[in-house]
Amino acid sequence: MSDDAVQQKSNFKRSVPEGDSLERMVCVDCGFINYENPKIVVGSVVHDAGKILLCRRAINPRKGFWTLPAGFMEQHETAMAGAMREAWEEATAKIEIEALLAVYSIPRLSQVQLIYRAHLAAPEIAPGPESAEVGMFAFDEIPWKELAFPSVHWALGQDREVAGQTHFPPFVNPPGEFGDLKDPAGL
Amino acid sequence: MSDDAVQQKSNFKRSVPEGDSLERMVCVDCGFINYENPKIVVGSVVHDAGKILLCRRAINPRKGFWTLPAGFMEQHETAMAGAMREAWEEATAKIEIEALLAVYSIPRLSQVQLIYRAHLAAPEIAPGPESAEVGMFAFDEIPWKELAFPSVHWALGQDREVAGQTHFPPFVNPPGEFGDLKDPAGL
Repeated sequence: MSDDAVQQKSNFKRSVPEGDSLERMVCVDCGFINYENPKIVVGSVVHDAGKILLCRRAINPRKGFWTLPAGFMEQHETAMAGAMREAWEEATAKIEIEALLAVYSIPRLSQVQLIYRAHLAAPEIAPGPESAEVGMFAFDEIPWKELAFPSVHWALGQDREVAGQTHFPPFVNPPGEFGDLKDPAGL
Repeated sequence: MSDDAVQQKSNFKRSVPEGDSLERMVCVDCGFINYENPKIVVGSVVHDAGKILLCRRAINPRKGFWTLPAGFMEQHETAMAGAMREAWEEATAKIEIEALLAVYSIPRLSQVQLIYRAHLAAPEIAPGPESAEVGMFAFDEIPWKELAFPSVHWALGQDREVAGQTHFPPFVNPPGEFGDLKDPAGL
């Protein structure tokens, strides 16, 4: 059942709760307010021996395309712990974080992405349940036309710009870019 | 009615949805899954003529204490737009953002705080509905013992450390600090 279908069954309607200034999803039957807030994606560009870790997605959206190990931050963890957890879940990779590479905003999806630069703490990697395949890629081996999301493309390019540096302000979205997928995917 | 009371009436119970690995709040009646994710707070240390903007809170938590203009990011905005909106809502301040000062994680509250350094784009400030009072403070005039939250204390001190700089990596939580209020408030 899609989220929309569940919300229909739950009798949620958009209305402005007392003392609020924005419309929220309010259940007409019981008054439950389902506050929607932007979600945080945590991930990392993981280096080892001059190569970068990528994961081929086993699930939608963008099944079959390559991405960084990244995903939604969970309750009661720190951002860096979340990025480390995602590297473990998606690529069975133990990583050490070096710097915050980028803070992207994807307003269409109400997402903030915190992308770290990291390196492998141990050389072993293996696909987790959401990855069909994982691999280490030299920069000129990266499958640019098969990347899952624009922000993967941004992060890989920006990471290259600050190669060898540790003291830098994090990057943001490239000018005029908001993470929309183009069709055909001209990432 | 508290969140807990609403959720009780809504018949939410903690259970692990099919295909998931964590417990979520699931409505027993209709199956609606109320995913809980960390929330993003966006705010700023706003400078003008050697002084810093603070707001005295008119609402709980920590009513009567001083804070930075900051609040929950809303759907479909960018992080920087959110910080600018909060400065406007809490202090009627038009600001220009200079740099990302800090990324704090408060795991107890499942919050990530993105705190920017900014300056006033126009000198006028006035309290918004959530502020009892707003003011510009020189560093040695800051009411350190009346600050609302530990992260306000961190941000003001860290901002001072990089005074005059624009090219720096954002700060994180001070070592061993997770944003817990101490009692008495030894911020």
